[in-house]
Amino acid sequence: MSDANSFGHLLKITTFGESHGPAIGVVLDGFPSQFEINWDEFHREMARRKPGQSAFTTARNESDEVEVLSGIFQGKTTGAPIAMIIRNRDQRPTDYEEMERAYRPGHADFTYQAKYGIRDPRGGGRSSARETVARVAAGALAQQFLAQQGIQISSYVSSIHHLSVPFSTEWFNRNTIDQSPIRCPHPETSQKMQDFILETKEKGDSVGGIITTMVQGLPAGLGNPVFHRFEAQMAYAMMSINATKGFEMGDGFASTQRFGSQNNDAFERLSNGKAVTSTNHSGGVLGGISNGMPVWFRVAFKPTSTISIAQNTINAQGESTELQAKGRHDPCVLPRAVPIVDAMTALTVLDFWLWQRAYQSV
Amino acid sequence: MSDANSFGHLLKITTFGESHGPAIGVVLDGFPSQFEINWDEFHREMARRKPGQSAFTTARNESDEVEVLSGIFQGKTTGAPIAMIIRNRDQRPTDYEEMERAYRPGHADFTYQAKYGIRDPRGGGRSSARETVARVAAGALAQQFLAQQGIQISSYVSSIHHLSVPFSTEWFNRNTIDQSPIRCPHPETSQKMQDFILETKEKGDSVGGIITTMVQGLPAGLGNPVFHRFEAQMAYAMMSINATKGFEMGDGFASTQRFGSQNNDAFERLSNGKAVTSTNHSGGVLGGISNGMPVWFRVAFKPTSTISIAQNTINAQGESTELQAKGRHDPCVLPRAVPIVDAMTALTVLDFWLWQRAYQSV
Amino acid sequence: MSDANSFGHLLKITTFGESHGPAIGVVLDGFPSQFEINWDEFHREMARRKPGQSAFTTARNESDEVEVLSGIFQGKTTGAPIAMIIRNRDQRPTDYEEMERAYRPGHADFTYQAKYGIRDPRGGGRSSARETVARVAAGALAQQFLAQQGIQISSYVSSIHHLSVPFSTEWFNRNTIDQSPIRCPHPETSQKMQDFILETKEKGDSVGGIITTMVQGLPAGLGNPVFHRFEAQMAYAMMSINATKGFEMGDGFASTQRFGSQNNDAFERLSNGKAVTSTNHSGGVLGGISNGMPVWFRVAFKPTSTISIAQNTINAQGESTELQAKGRHDPCVLPRAVPIVDAMTALTVLDFWLWQRAYQSV
Amino acid sequence: MSDANSFGHLLKITTFGESHGPAIGVVLDGFPSQFEINWDEFHREMARRKPGQSAFTTARNESDEVEVLSGIFQGKTTGAPIAMIIRNRDQRPTDYEEMERAYRPGHADFTYQAKYGIRDPRGGGRSSARETVARVAAGALAQQFLAQQGIQISSYVSSIHHLSVPFSTEWFNRNTIDQSPIRCPHPETSQKMQDFILETKEKGDSVGGIITTMVQGLPAGLGNPVFHRFEAQMAYAMMSINATKGFEMGDGFASTQRFGSQNNDAFERLSNGKAVTSTNHSGGVLGGISNGMPVWFRVAFKPTSTISIAQNTINAQGESTELQAKGRHDPCVLPRAVPIVDAMTALTVLDFWLWQRAYQSV
Repeated sequence: MSDANSFGHLLKITTFGESHGPAIGVVLDGFPSQFEINWDEFHREMARRKPGQSAFTTARNESDEVEVLSGIFQGKTTGAPIAMIIRNRDQRPTDYEEMERAYRPGHADFTYQAKYGIRDPRGGGRSSARETVARVAAGALAQQFLAQQGIQISSYVSSIHHLSVPFSTEWFNRNTIDQSPIRCPHPETSQKMQDFILETKEKGDSVGGIITTMVQGLPAGLGNPVFHRFEAQMAYAMMSINATKGFEMGDGFASTQRFGSQNNDAFERLSNGKAVTSTNHSGGVLGGISNGMPVWFRVAFKPTSTISIAQNTINAQGESTELQAKGRHDPCVLPRAVPIVDAMTALTVLDFWLWQRAYQSV
Repeated sequence: MSDANSFGHLLKITTFGESHGPAIGVVLDGFPSQFEINWDEFHREMARRKPGQSAFTTARNESDEVEVLSGIFQGKTTGAPIAMIIRNRDQRPTDYEEMERAYRPGHADFTYQAKYGIRDPRGGGRSSARETVARVAAGALAQQFLAQQGIQISSYVSSIHHLSVPFSTEWFNRNTIDQSPIRCPHPETSQKMQDFILETKEKGDSVGGIITTMVQGLPAGLGNPVFHRFEAQMAYAMMSINATKGFEMGDGFASTQRFGSQNNDAFERLSNGKAVTSTNHSGGVLGGISNGMPVWFRVAFKPTSTISIAQNTINAQGESTELQAKGRHDPCVLPRAVPIVDAMTALTVLDFWLWQRAYQSV
Repeated sequence: MSDANSFGHLLKITTFGESHGPAIGVVLDGFPSQFEINWDEFHREMARRKPGQSAFTTARNESDEVEVLSGIFQGKTTGAPIAMIIRNRDQRPTDYEEMERAYRPGHADFTYQAKYGIRDPRGGGRSSARETVARVAAGALAQQFLAQQGIQISSYVSSIHHLSVPFSTEWFNRNTIDQSPIRCPHPETSQKMQDFILETKEKGDSVGGIITTMVQGLPAGLGNPVFHRFEAQMAYAMMSINATKGFEMGDGFASTQRFGSQNNDAFERLSNGKAVTSTNHSGGVLGGISNGMPVWFRVAFKPTSTISIAQNTINAQGESTELQAKGRHDPCVLPRAVPIVDAMTALTVLDFWLWQRAYQSV
Repeated sequence: MSDANSFGHLLKITTFGESHGPAIGVVLDGFPSQFEINWDEFHREMARRKPGQSAFTTARNESDEVEVLSGIFQGKTTGAPIAMIIRNRDQRPTDYEEMERAYRPGHADFTYQAKYGIRDPRGGGRSSARETVARVAAGALAQQFLAQQGIQISSYVSSIHHLSVPFSTEWFNRNTIDQSPIRCPHPETSQKMQDFILETKEKGDSVGGIITTMVQGLPAGLGNPVFHRFEAQMAYAMMSINATKGFEMGDGFASTQRFGSQNNDAFERLSNGKAVTSTNHSGGVLGGISNGMPVWFRVAFKPTSTISIAQNTINAQGESTELQAKGRHDPCVLPRAVPIVDAMTALTVLDFWLWQRAYQSV
């Protein structure tokens, strides 16, 4: 508390900044000391979230130059909090005049006003996807640390609207994923998705979809049995991302349509303290704790709420009006959400990893 | 931290106890003072979770007598922590000998051993559904407080395996729900579900399903924009319940198959500071904050992992073996999970409600 | 949050119970698993806090029988929360009738009423020293764990009113300390203190004093540089005990009367990663972090507020009245506060110890 | 958790930055929305902590220009986190070469190395008093909010080495306090202190002293009975400031030399829900909760550890060496510590104030 703008326990991030204020930033606290940062890798990760990468994402020209303000000395982490800021450059506040007048359907405009009694109408304030740049920066460092421990995270766009790729462990490969402009590793589906998104964009509309994530190399024993379960914290992490509407661990909702005898993953053997099971319906967690099999889950993203099609709505006085958004908005957030999901996954996993180390047998 | 066994911020519960230890208990901290408790209502709520209610739940004869140890004076809350314990009576440890030898597939036996290096094999220790009695006791008090504020929570079993009820706001009525032994308010489907569960039980197998919940009367403004979003904390609350594998807010995964223009809920008017929208695909939250429409969501429960059918597994030495559970276990946890979902919902909502009050305009 | 009734981070206690309710209890969460508890030692520690040990403490016949409700299996900790309760037996509510009518000067009666709008007048509710039995139980386990790591805690009564013992490292020996009924290891002063307390008791009055504590065997590196400093958390721990009014780390207030050149502890050499300094004015911490020298500090306790001498006060209506307490109260809390200080010290140190382990170099 | 660099619950600050890195900063989360900030007042408060104000403080030319990065829109708080940074300008890293070679006695150099295995030797990294500029910025906003509620905080230097001012409520007046360059409101003693500090400075030595603080206008009911007591959290806040070694609430250590009958503050009457007592030995808190009388406490600061006199010490290899600091350091931190104490007091009080509002009777 207040974790309104913070996330994590032993590894904690606090983010700040509005999309049209001076800067977005993050304070990463609890990162282990003496870790040598690979800045090339860091910038590659930042570039994955950058807008304007392709026709499928917003044309807004965001500068994602990160300035590190603290916590790093001669290329290594010192144990002090790592603060990073990203200046906002390309601000066109006039684009948002319309929205100042009326509440965008599906957007946080109204709820902000209801909660705070005041609202920064430029770009949605804290609710802008711009906030996630801070998460990606922090998550990039967490991913580097985890990689050194043999833990790899990869996420891909597994469905857009009705177009989906069947699950395969083959897809969990960053190189393959990033070859697709919308981060769908199945070339054929990727192409169909691109066509579909462009078509939707032309109509001024938007689409949603699903991201599937896998964590490989995780030891058994991370998580807790009761409240702070691995899957609970991961659900929290994912549902804290803009536009997410659902989370499922392993087979999730599909497992509700199976019998126990089908759904249980039979134990086959032990390997280095990890369980090897014949199937992995559970998504690598049992009773809130990782079992050592790959962890996997899915996250649902709704279609972007800001669209260029005219919609019925009300203004601050509660009067009926019509709104047609003019800002530059992604017709589909999924491609850029992939690195955000990776980042939140890494922050969640490293927090559990540190926590477990505190309790290791003496 | 450690919130391994605690949940909440301004309203916080800490639970303790193993299924086969002396008692299960809860400490409820931060409950407002001077609240007069309705004990009849409290016991009715406890009875909803009690095992042995019908053929569809475990035959284990649990005594759910609650002893209040603190925090209440002359029938009213004092502001001090409210501790409640429930003794474990009907313990048959011999039932669990089998499980001591081998890890149950789909169960937390292995992960506990991996995490703690030690394990109480009797009934799964903390991972037993018995732990949830503590949540229901605390949640019963939270529900009473919320009811006084005009906030009502109701959950029902919306699907079992392939059998499901289409969504209707009509179902959100406790009386109708509780008339069905499996808490499915649609009589026809309820009957089919009962038949199906009994059939499954006879085979020694188990089934899962989905619970749908609605919160009515919630003011706009609860939740936070970034991490501690209403839906994130609710997902956390739900995924902290045993056997849950998925969560969706409002239309959730279904919204990924819609266009933005279809998925956005058009604002119609304001009513007492709350928004009225023409549809409610969002589930009553926008940007992490309640908008004043009914909040609704769905939770996926996997089929119970402990089944009477023989399964392949390994023992502590990693050797292959076969396991056939003998304990008394629910063929389907859904009917008894309904009050647990209600409880966790109430604890989550009241926490946000208190939080918002702290910041109200002066 | 709410840490109103909880203390600690990775090792956390939550206490509950009023002095005249059914029971006092504690939930100890985050205690390392697989630790074998020495129950004889545990009971010895509990006996140190027990009332009625001598003429210097309250005559109230408290039963301090601890019932363990969870977290321990076959004598070992399981990693699950350890809940312990102590029933209240010897309740004489009639003793408190007077206090129900009027606010005791120096006591929490009035502030409870102001905060909660309701108050359990029997024995002060949560403000009773009875609450500390829960801390001692949890602290006893923490002390056992620390002892296994070579970390020893000892506290003694270093002054009562004007009678004080000059500082000497010699006094930090539990056996010597416990040979004195008021836990002052200097026999001559101990005798004077006893006489003085009895004299005061006969007058119906009360006295305060100072407890001095030392932690030996602590590694360097525990604590944090900025907010969660070792001395800050220790001050918090101590000032969370009833009747405490002051805390000083090492030379504390006395160091304000020295020059820097006198007050700095010169480094002499390193020993096993710990600093050896020529003096220890700092109390074993530099910049919020332990340096490996013995940690020591002092805690001031005011005279017990409940006395048998008539005092001017007001009642709930704000009318002037006179109050003469009739309950059985310690004329001096210091002797029994020693094990409470030991307990809170142990809980604080073990929390920091676990925390530091989480971040140890990989 | 991790509150290593965060402070507070409903109102929380997270600070970052090293004295010789690019910037120092703070994220203030949980500040009420719609509050109009008085920037003149804010800058006046910042100026109170600024170095180089007089001969009694460090000559370092710090720029304390604050850049607000978020949370404020058109002069009003929005409810979003308020991030502020202060760039470090006048860095002379060569001054610190000596210290890189040897551990400064009384300083955090050694303990940082022991904790993190790495250390930024320039100016002490996080342990520099420079960090406190972030606290003063956040505290300035908290003070403005409290002032609007009629709550006033004032602190003054009550002693330097052997020179002290007897307690008088008269001193708690910001104007009088700030007329003295060392913030001692008693003109005669102020002059003696100035002479004494200059004398000490010439010798290359340093002195400590005591700051006394009073909070006026506080309602009754803030704080908690058990762990998170008003005085415990205040002790934590104060002991989290650099160079503090002791804290006492009200009469503190002096109360240990009084009888209960002398130390209890007799209740005289009620006034607007607050108690009026004949004396105020308790410092305005009873049982962890404010009673409505002025809150007052004292904080002990040791003499600055960095001095220009040669001292025996060791280097990183544990070899004996001598160190004579060359940086620009305050011979006495007290004058500049006053606004820091004010800031931490304000942050603590406002946190409790918000918390209490959450639980107010319905």
